[in-house]
Amino acid sequence: MKAVVFHGPGSRSLEEVPDPEVTDERDAVVRVTATTICGTDLHILQGDVPAVRPGRILGHEAVGVVDEVASDVHGISPGDRVLVPAISACGRCRYCHAGHYGQCIGGGGWLLGRCYDGTQAEYVRVPFAHNSAYRIPGGVTDEQALMLADVLPTGYEVGALNGHVQPGDVVVVIGSGPVGLAAIMGARLFSPSHVVAIDKAEPRLAAARRLGADVTVNDLQEDPLSTVRSLTDGLGADVVIEAVGSPETFEMAIKLTRAGGRVANVGVHGRPITLHLEDQWPRDLTITTGLVDTCSIPALLRLVECGQLDAGKLVSHRFGFDEFERAYQVFASPADSGAVKVVLSAD
Amino acid sequence: MKAVVFHGPGSRSLEEVPDPEVTDERDAVVRVTATTICGTDLHILQGDVPAVRPGRILGHEAVGVVDEVASDVHGISPGDRVLVPAISACGRCRYCHAGHYGQCIGGGGWLLGRCYDGTQAEYVRVPFAHNSAYRIPGGVTDEQALMLADVLPTGYEVGALNGHVQPGDVVVVIGSGPVGLAAIMGARLFSPSHVVAIDKAEPRLAAARRLGADVTVNDLQEDPLSTVRSLTDGLGADVVIEAVGSPETFEMAIKLTRAGGRVANVGVHGRPITLHLEDQWPRDLTITTGLVDTCSIPALLRLVECGQLDAGKLVSHRFGFDEFERAYQVFASPADSGAVKVVLSAD
Amino acid sequence: MKAVVFHGPGSRSLEEVPDPEVTDERDAVVRVTATTICGTDLHILQGDVPAVRPGRILGHEAVGVVDEVASDVHGISPGDRVLVPAISACGRCRYCHAGHYGQCIGGGGWLLGRCYDGTQAEYVRVPFAHNSAYRIPGGVTDEQALMLADVLPTGYEVGALNGHVQPGDVVVVIGSGPVGLAAIMGARLFSPSHVVAIDKAEPRLAAARRLGADVTVNDLQEDPLSTVRSLTDGLGADVVIEAVGSPETFEMAIKLTRAGGRVANVGVHGRPITLHLEDQWPRDLTITTGLVDTCSIPALLRLVECGQLDAGKLVSHRFGFDEFERAYQVFASPADSGAVKVVLSAD
Amino acid sequence: MKAVVFHGPGSRSLEEVPDPEVTDERDAVVRVTATTICGTDLHILQGDVPAVRPGRILGHEAVGVVDEVASDVHGISPGDRVLVPAISACGRCRYCHAGHYGQCIGGGGWLLGRCYDGTQAEYVRVPFAHNSAYRIPGGVTDEQALMLADVLPTGYEVGALNGHVQPGDVVVVIGSGPVGLAAIMGARLFSPSHVVAIDKAEPRLAAARRLGADVTVNDLQEDPLSTVRSLTDGLGADVVIEAVGSPETFEMAIKLTRAGGRVANVGVHGRPITLHLEDQWPRDLTITTGLVDTCSIPALLRLVECGQLDAGKLVSHRFGFDEFERAYQVFASPADSGAVKVVLSAD
Repeated sequence: MKAVVFHGPGSRSLEEVPDPEVTDERDAVVRVTATTICGTDLHILQGDVPAVRPGRILGHEAVGVVDEVASDVHGISPGDRVLVPAISACGRCRYCHAGHYGQCIGGGGWLLGRCYDGTQAEYVRVPFAHNSAYRIPGGVTDEQALMLADVLPTGYEVGALNGHVQPGDVVVVIGSGPVGLAAIMGARLFSPSHVVAIDKAEPRLAAARRLGADVTVNDLQEDPLSTVRSLTDGLGADVVIEAVGSPETFEMAIKLTRAGGRVANVGVHGRPITLHLEDQWPRDLTITTGLVDTCSIPALLRLVECGQLDAGKLVSHRFGFDEFERAYQVFASPADSGAVKVVLSAD
Repeated sequence: MKAVVFHGPGSRSLEEVPDPEVTDERDAVVRVTATTICGTDLHILQGDVPAVRPGRILGHEAVGVVDEVASDVHGISPGDRVLVPAISACGRCRYCHAGHYGQCIGGGGWLLGRCYDGTQAEYVRVPFAHNSAYRIPGGVTDEQALMLADVLPTGYEVGALNGHVQPGDVVVVIGSGPVGLAAIMGARLFSPSHVVAIDKAEPRLAAARRLGADVTVNDLQEDPLSTVRSLTDGLGADVVIEAVGSPETFEMAIKLTRAGGRVANVGVHGRPITLHLEDQWPRDLTITTGLVDTCSIPALLRLVECGQLDAGKLVSHRFGFDEFERAYQVFASPADSGAVKVVLSAD
Repeated sequence: MKAVVFHGPGSRSLEEVPDPEVTDERDAVVRVTATTICGTDLHILQGDVPAVRPGRILGHEAVGVVDEVASDVHGISPGDRVLVPAISACGRCRYCHAGHYGQCIGGGGWLLGRCYDGTQAEYVRVPFAHNSAYRIPGGVTDEQALMLADVLPTGYEVGALNGHVQPGDVVVVIGSGPVGLAAIMGARLFSPSHVVAIDKAEPRLAAARRLGADVTVNDLQEDPLSTVRSLTDGLGADVVIEAVGSPETFEMAIKLTRAGGRVANVGVHGRPITLHLEDQWPRDLTITTGLVDTCSIPALLRLVECGQLDAGKLVSHRFGFDEFERAYQVFASPADSGAVKVVLSAD
Repeated sequence: MKAVVFHGPGSRSLEEVPDPEVTDERDAVVRVTATTICGTDLHILQGDVPAVRPGRILGHEAVGVVDEVASDVHGISPGDRVLVPAISACGRCRYCHAGHYGQCIGGGGWLLGRCYDGTQAEYVRVPFAHNSAYRIPGGVTDEQALMLADVLPTGYEVGALNGHVQPGDVVVVIGSGPVGLAAIMGARLFSPSHVVAIDKAEPRLAAARRLGADVTVNDLQEDPLSTVRSLTDGLGADVVIEAVGSPETFEMAIKLTRAGGRVANVGVHGRPITLHLEDQWPRDLTITTGLVDTCSIPALLRLVECGQLDAGKLVSHRFGFDEFERAYQVFASPADSGAVKVVLSAD
């Protein structure tokens, strides 16, 4: 089959590789009909994720059709249209029992495109498929379902749920990349009074407005603090979601939060941050970090199916699978391309 | 001043009475600019609420302008436009400290139009005004604010919050009178996948659709159980809100709820109900009862102000204050009039 | 092997039957070293549980040693000492994913001694053993672990957790049978200010005092309402746990609860109850029902292991497995025998 | 009257000053029968709290007898024995309505001994006395009640409640000074399986064992990480409470916490800390900061009254009020004196 293979920093190629096979009782093999590229794939290509070795097929999000299931996989059958999420969950460890699939200590976690060959391929072996593949309801398109493999659960779980957004809250989302936009959509499910999006790129702020932000701040031009204070009687935001991953934006998140508020970190950080506890110790802050669990997929599927959540709005570009090179270029240059999520379809 | 006075079962009149005066350090006097009629007022007129004695001015919902405040009332001043809620809260007892104003044991609770003269008058004395009057933001109309005096907090607090509605849930609301409709609006703030409204009157079901129900069942014609099962893989609803107050509808609520689900009773009951614990003991149900606290008013005001909650949609009829007799007739005959909430304005 | 077999109402016998065998990939066979009798077994013998057919081996609680595991059972191995709980959990359905094993819709739930042959035998086949058998830490005795198969999780989960006991609360437990006593122990883990035990039998009230009640009321002689009011400034209890299962005790539970309080039903009811919603609708009550999930077993095992929970205190009588007839007699006559939980050991 | 007056860094004296008087409708004057010294008083004397100006009477914890109440103070009367907590709460602002008295924006917060004259005096004016003075039940001694003015609510609210301690958890408390010991006592109310105390001073670790720690680690001699890992199957602690306030101990707190665990900061920090988000972003941590609210005083009083919480155990030394100089010396030298909390009584 054809697959996108990582060959060390800066190097990837679409090439012919052997088809995957079931090797464990809990495996399934899925024929991929649509996949996408994540910001993490770009990090891998920059050499920032040493766990990923040359030779690895990239990608951790897919929808497809079940080709084969091993003996211990119940609930899905060959021919079923399924969503393959970023996280594989053993389903039996202490963390999986609590729904914390991202922290699985039974062999799962983020495996695809990292320790296992990934989804940017014609077929993918899905580990722990008994607990890590979701049948897609008839009314949900491939493209919509694909957005539930990683980006929307990340924004919803790590942003909106960890941030404990409540009706009437003022919510700030720093960063309007794909995950920030997903956090805006996730936060909107709880009816905040305002969602303030902060970014430096106008096209991203325009996307934020389309996806649910009612206030946008370009922090190259405006001071977000004065905007947030004017919306909150000077107190600060109830919830701030950090979706960039830099020391500067994390410190901004802390500053924008009211006493008693919550800071939900979604951003992937590469450096330590400084937390001014000499100021913050008495302010009743709650700061959360987290990796997606994808445990919210069943609820999100229901919301997409009934039309309450327009997951497809995150898709900005569509490609055939053979156009993977162009798709990577577009996705890696959002300032030029306006890319949010790109979809690569099998035909 | 003019006021609507209760003269015993079946008897009320608009008549001239003395103006109210401040008699306690925590009082305010408010000039009423808009008031409304509640189903409870009809119960009082039927003689069902013995605590209300002849001579009492009716009404427990108002917006108006502060005329006078006593020494211990801070935060509102003469000339301020304010919302006077159904519940007066001492602010100092164990229940008030927990936000359970409806259960106040420091002299508060439901006072206006019951133990104190009410709001269907040109002026009203507001007890515990330091904690029971809310300044109305500029962008919120009198009519919108008036809906936050009782009906919307009741649907939101006793229905949606007690029912712990979550994104993706299937929610059933039994009864599409004013409070049932408010519960539909309140539930929608948490993005359920479906809100099923059940009633016997088509005009009310039409109102339910306008206010957020995506499925309606006329239970004179259809079996709600089969509708709910078809939406829930046969399991039953996640949350059922009872907004009628009869033994039959309460039993329906229990039957429509899935194992592990919640039944939030909002209805005012006059008779005991039978709970089939011989069937329900192992089903992990949570059943709640409750009186409104009106503690959600600040959050609801923010939602109205920013346009997320269209509180005015509950208003079906508008009258001048002198037309109170006609307003009562319209409100008491919703089957003919299509009345939801009626507003009586000062001029 | 030998086993206690149900032969229809009133009839049981210890007899020779074939050894169980693994018949599903998720099965294990466990050699039973200790088992016990539950009040439910007495109900079965009275013919109250029609799902149990003649020929069924009784019992749903055991500790033992793993004899054999099927292909899909990981985490336990032959030779391991294990706890076999009352509930079998598929681990994959919506309810199991939420920890609601008692509501499993994937084939699990209460199976042993009901739809599957039970634990009052030398060997037992354990269904869904991948998710329904717990290795016992070295510092925990068989007898202690056996108390975690059903009775203690029931009191803890359905009583204390559903009742949401908080430090400083006044908690009432109605009924001081085995499950009521377990609820007392469970409630104590959250440091209530008072635990009031109510029963009609003095020996049971004495057991309640030994296990954590600091106030006891014999309701043949005293009015529990006056006791509870005197402890609560007249308000009523914060939490009432009903552990009897009769209409009278359920109504008592409602009466003893303060406005805003919680009633956790643990009792197994055979008849409907009357709920006076005409009084209770405005009182902010939360009423819960529930079947045990046994999802708390890992936490309870840690508490037993470290000495914080003295599970063995529930054991009143010990028998050899051959003495099952006598054990049933003793357990069925607690008024005479003072029985709480009886243990039947393999040798 | 006599009072301990701050005269700038390093300088304090017991001197004669005018008696306080009621100056606001919400004031009370209390005759102090017992007061104590807090670590914060030492910080003030070091000049670390610039808000405190020379001439200020120190102290923010007291029990005493009500001498006079202003017009708006209901619920306490002259002659009542009362607890005066560290936090004064207006009772009417958004934060007070949510029980977050420490964040009061209506004029309250930490006032006594900071912006208002404090409790180390024969009399104290108590602001917002309608909401900031608690009648002491007959069965509670002055000394016990005094421990509820600050130190025990701080350990309970900011440590145990923010840390969300659950039965069976492994809890680590870093620092065994007065607040760390209070956190140990607070955590024990939720029945953790283990409470691990970490300190560098053996007498403090001995105190930790007396007050509820079952494991102690002197981190001058042992590596806390290996102890915590050995108790948690290598995962790390469920909850870590930081009660020191240094960058080193905060980083230790993060390292000792399992994925999905909670870090509750109680320590008062004077410098920023470094948070290694490059490691922690995917670990599902929850980090909280906070100032005490003292909203838990009613529950803690009930626990002391019924004997569930032995608040007096925190008291190590007792002095007459005239011995304040010696009391300060003892409290400031815990390594030599073994001081935990010192009590200064009026006679």
